[in-house]
Amino acid sequence: MHPPIEFWFEFGSNYSYLSLMRIEQAASRAGVPLRWKPFLLGPILRALGHQDSPFNEQKEKGDYVWRDMARRAAKYGLPFQRPSVFPRRAVLPMRVALLGADQPWMGEFCRRIMLQNWVHDCDIDHDGVVLAALDGLVIDPAAIVAQAGAEHTKALLRAQTEQARARGIFGAPSLIVDGELFWGDDRLDDALDYAQAGRP
Amino acid sequence: MHPPIEFWFEFGSNYSYLSLMRIEQAASRAGVPLRWKPFLLGPILRALGHQDSPFNEQKEKGDYVWRDMARRAAKYGLPFQRPSVFPRRAVLPMRVALLGADQPWMGEFCRRIMLQNWVHDCDIDHDGVVLAALDGLVIDPAAIVAQAGAEHTKALLRAQTEQARARGIFGAPSLIVDGELFWGDDRLDDALDYAQAGRP
Repeated sequence: MHPPIEFWFEFGSNYSYLSLMRIEQAASRAGVPLRWKPFLLGPILRALGHQDSPFNEQKEKGDYVWRDMARRAAKYGLPFQRPSVFPRRAVLPMRVALLGADQPWMGEFCRRIMLQNWVHDCDIDHDGVVLAALDGLVIDPAAIVAQAGAEHTKALLRAQTEQARARGIFGAPSLIVDGELFWGDDRLDDALDYAQAGRP
Repeated sequence: MHPPIEFWFEFGSNYSYLSLMRIEQAASRAGVPLRWKPFLLGPILRALGHQDSPFNEQKEKGDYVWRDMARRAAKYGLPFQRPSVFPRRAVLPMRVALLGADQPWMGEFCRRIMLQNWVHDCDIDHDGVVLAALDGLVIDPAAIVAQAGAEHTKALLRAQTEQARARGIFGAPSLIVDGELFWGDDRLDDALDYAQAGRP
């Protein structure tokens, strides 16, 4: 039995998009249990001294990242359109993802939200978009959205973000297998290999 | 005939080590001509507002990078020992690399210098180490080292570093194929694929 892979992600993170669209199938193919770990990247980056996304703070790196995203998406066969707003606030869908982390609808919900941001350029921090993403996946989307706004859920997402920081996470996506941290979409395969083999 | 791959690197850059040890063989296997492009990473990072390596400035990222390096080196079958000094000054061997860029001894010289830094923890910005790395590769190592110290060579390395900046390079290693920039050791295969296929 392989150890699980923890997938720490944020809907506003572009490289999280590339991993999120692939990870459920990739983990299943590898026979590695998947643990969804939504967290807020903003507070982590601010604690590290960033005022904005590092891709906005450094023009050279930013220019590169959007070119890299287009190439990588093409390589994976994923659609991609640079959004008009970056980074996009995603607190509401992140809270829903926290509620759904152990539910069978989690993967499909997350992929729908990601496509809204990274292909359809929609404001994903919006009731209507989140309700649409839940449509057909749960019996009562409105009840889930209401639960997402409860103080208890807000506190849980803050706590999970704090846990990310305590685990040494400094960016997204991050993957943790058996306490071993892997950072970035380009380490997804390494993390799955590690889970399969129990070694780097 | 495939377009050449330009390999922009610096001996003091840890991810440059991983690429440099592999690139001559990888490019040859892919049938892609290799252009060596040594440049100084320090002035590029300072121009972007860094006072030190980003891996030293952010403790979390730094801790991660050394773990990542050990895993990646193991994956590639390369020896690796975290150096006691990082980033290590490498101006003298970089100047020699500039002189050797079109010479048949370039690859072997660069691999020897990299191993001195990333495995043997030696001060590579030192005449003795550079002379030893040239030993057996050129007829007169001392003449090359003398030429490396000439004003003309110094100016050429500054100019090549300025060219890196003008081309949008913000880190090392970087790869350029047909004007397309790829950043990082984990994009080496993508860059070679691009050269082979003429597309991302």
